[in-house]
Amino acid sequence: MNGNLSAERQTFVTHLECSLTGEHYAADTLHGLSRAGRPLLVRYDLEAAGKALDRDALTRRETDLWRWRELLPVRQTSNIVSLGEIETPLVPIPASGGAEVLVKDEGRLPTGSFKARGLVMAVTMARELGVRRIAMPTNGNAGAALAAYASRCGIETVVFCPDDTPEINVREIAAQGARVYRVNGLIDECGALVARGAAEGLWFDFSTLKEPYRIEGKKTMGLELAAQFDWRLPDAIFYPTGGGTGLIGMWKAFDELEQLGWIGPERPKMFAVQASGCAPIVKAFEDGVEHAERWEDAHTVAAGIRVPKAVGDFLILRAVRESGGRALAVDDAAILSAVNVCARRDGLLLCPEGGATLAAYRDALAAGLVSASDRAVLFNCATGLKYPMPEANAALDKNAAIDLAAL
Amino acid sequence: MNGNLSAERQTFVTHLECSLTGEHYAADTLHGLSRAGRPLLVRYDLEAAGKALDRDALTRRETDLWRWRELLPVRQTSNIVSLGEIETPLVPIPASGGAEVLVKDEGRLPTGSFKARGLVMAVTMARELGVRRIAMPTNGNAGAALAAYASRCGIETVVFCPDDTPEINVREIAAQGARVYRVNGLIDECGALVARGAAEGLWFDFSTLKEPYRIEGKKTMGLELAAQFDWRLPDAIFYPTGGGTGLIGMWKAFDELEQLGWIGPERPKMFAVQASGCAPIVKAFEDGVEHAERWEDAHTVAAGIRVPKAVGDFLILRAVRESGGRALAVDDAAILSAVNVCARRDGLLLCPEGGATLAAYRDALAAGLVSASDRAVLFNCATGLKYPMPEANAALDKNAAIDLAAL
Ligand SMILES: Cc1ncc(COP(=O)(O)O)c(C=O)c1O
Ligand SMILES: Cc1ncc(COP(=O)(O)O)c(C=O)c1O
Repeated sequence: MNGNLSAERQTFVTHLECSLTGEHYAADTLHGLSRAGRPLLVRYDLEAAGKALDRDALTRRETDLWRWRELLPVRQTSNIVSLGEIETPLVPIPASGGAEVLVKDEGRLPTGSFKARGLVMAVTMARELGVRRIAMPTNGNAGAALAAYASRCGIETVVFCPDDTPEINVREIAAQGARVYRVNGLIDECGALVARGAAEGLWFDFSTLKEPYRIEGKKTMGLELAAQFDWRLPDAIFYPTGGGTGLIGMWKAFDELEQLGWIGPERPKMFAVQASGCAPIVKAFEDGVEHAERWEDAHTVAAGIRVPKAVGDFLILRAVRESGGRALAVDDAAILSAVNVCARRDGLLLCPEGGATLAAYRDALAAGLVSASDRAVLFNCATGLKYPMPEANAALDKNAAIDLAAL
Repeated sequence: MNGNLSAERQTFVTHLECSLTGEHYAADTLHGLSRAGRPLLVRYDLEAAGKALDRDALTRRETDLWRWRELLPVRQTSNIVSLGEIETPLVPIPASGGAEVLVKDEGRLPTGSFKARGLVMAVTMARELGVRRIAMPTNGNAGAALAAYASRCGIETVVFCPDDTPEINVREIAAQGARVYRVNGLIDECGALVARGAAEGLWFDFSTLKEPYRIEGKKTMGLELAAQFDWRLPDAIFYPTGGGTGLIGMWKAFDELEQLGWIGPERPKMFAVQASGCAPIVKAFEDGVEHAERWEDAHTVAAGIRVPKAVGDFLILRAVRESGGRALAVDDAAILSAVNVCARRDGLLLCPEGGATLAAYRDALAAGLVSASDRAVLFNCATGLKYPMPEANAALDKNAAIDLAAL
């Protein structure tokens, strides 16, 4: 059985830090945003962590998310609320992508999306810090992961989602024991309800980046990539960007790994991929500004990246720029066509957000931003099974004379 | 990167053998059923395999399905058609199951079900043996896995499913490049169409157990369990049984592991779980006979186990009896209630077939067939996301005065 879930391990959190001002906050107490209204980042004594754990010791552990324990905030092993957070595979897509293109298939995680990484960490910390009731706005996947982990450890949850959230997501959230409500607005309007309830003392606010630990969970995507590539990072990463937690988390992971001396100073080019119907980060990137304006009338088939305003906008933009990457927008037709071609030719059914990364990769290749010999990783953040697929309804009558040769 | 998919490894297949008569057939040529109309089993030189691979060497490999290569039929590594066949996690369900109950969560495999294990092997072998066109009857999941792997390596596929197969499964099959047809009949009637086309030379017949390699893929469930439990098998296994490939495969795996000297003679009690609306194996078990009669008017919400007649019936019954287990039937209400309680209390959304194993486990516990201290493994063979969930439609109007405290 998995030793990562039974062994007590040393932990190295020293404090939390405002991502904008650098102001320090105490570890092991409950926090939301910083006084400056910005995300808090968890800081570790990496020198000590590096002495407690080396790459060889790490390699001998089971490969799931909890192998990274010394770089994670959870103090007590018994608080871990696990549903089996396996290391996700890298799947080549030679026909629709190219010889050096790998899809990180995050749909294999509990509740079928990478939101499980962030939420398993945040819920475990909430449990550790004594939270009893949580609320969250969601485009679907985050709410499902929250519901699953919170129900598992007896924390109550209230979830708000835009009223056009796919039925399957809403049902999944409800089935996993949350109270879920559809709201006639976008995710930031759902977030406003959560904020109001938190101010009224009704629950703890679990919005993206408004609590410090989801980013630590998402960070494991970067840690895993480093281990999977034998401590040489890929040349480019294409990440479907809504709130941007994953991109920010990976960037933080690379930084911590360099401080540990496990990787060098090289970084992948980070490509933040958005839909052309909701591309606030792309606009800010192109305008050369540090913060993004709210995107009005946001619309796209890729609901997970329909985020008009991200509280961590400046962190996303900073990582993309430092990496020499870009923020890229792709339209819905290109997204759906990418999903289609990847499923038909490589047998891999992407979610629309995953399709967006494939479409953006192709654009980047055509524009010379990456070359065909660059090793590129595309993030497929959820299983394609959660999303509507084209109809397929050919019927045969067993009582009729069926000409099989004509099928 | 994964060495299991790049290293050439020794293989040890000696021949194939009729499961009924023991008659031998040549390896490395294409076969369907034996001359006696029964499944063929692949045989290995296990003494030589045991010299080439020991448990320590195995432990150092990546944990995916291809780590077992010396016990699998594929000769050339370059023929492997992989979509990332990870080792599936064992998830405890303390609240809805009990302290010693673990769910083997097969929904994490490519195409969201354990059918990927069988089909990755069968398609890889079809490719190795030069097959160009394949047809198959399916209740949904097997067709999806076939389509994905076959499209990935350029093999054409034609798939037939009962006309009440869930829409999501049919669409998934089509999206992954197969030609798929709904037929107004059950799976064995779809199978009759496939058989006729095969006789006309239109395609190769990939029905359950009608080609020899799916069982070798499913066998890896047993191999994985042995490794995950550190070479001491669990006390009981609950397996949702349609065609029974997985149960037969695991039984074969345990036998091979014992011949290798990696496990002893102890075996888990094997519980074959069926729905009371389609329980031919349960009836045959109770009647004390070796072959099962076709079940008329089969119906259940658990479509994957709605198999009125299984060509490997005698192999299923033999394994269950030798193990000291049972064949158990549970009704649809118990299945849906088990899915519901597991999702709400343990945060794990089972498929209906997985729910059936939980319902059967509870019955077995109540009847004293297992005790609460027995370590039991329940197979959740597909992601719960592929199946209809109850409605959840509470709507809030952002423009109204919402009383959050009342939610
Ligand atoms: C499938 C999918 N992809 C991408 C995203 C965006 O993730 P992030 O908020 O980390 O940018 C989401 C978020 O909902 C998602 O569900
Ligand atoms: C989810 C699920 N469970 C169980 C089964 C039964 O598997 P087997 O044919 O190995 O008995 C199937 C087969 O379709 C399935 O899809």
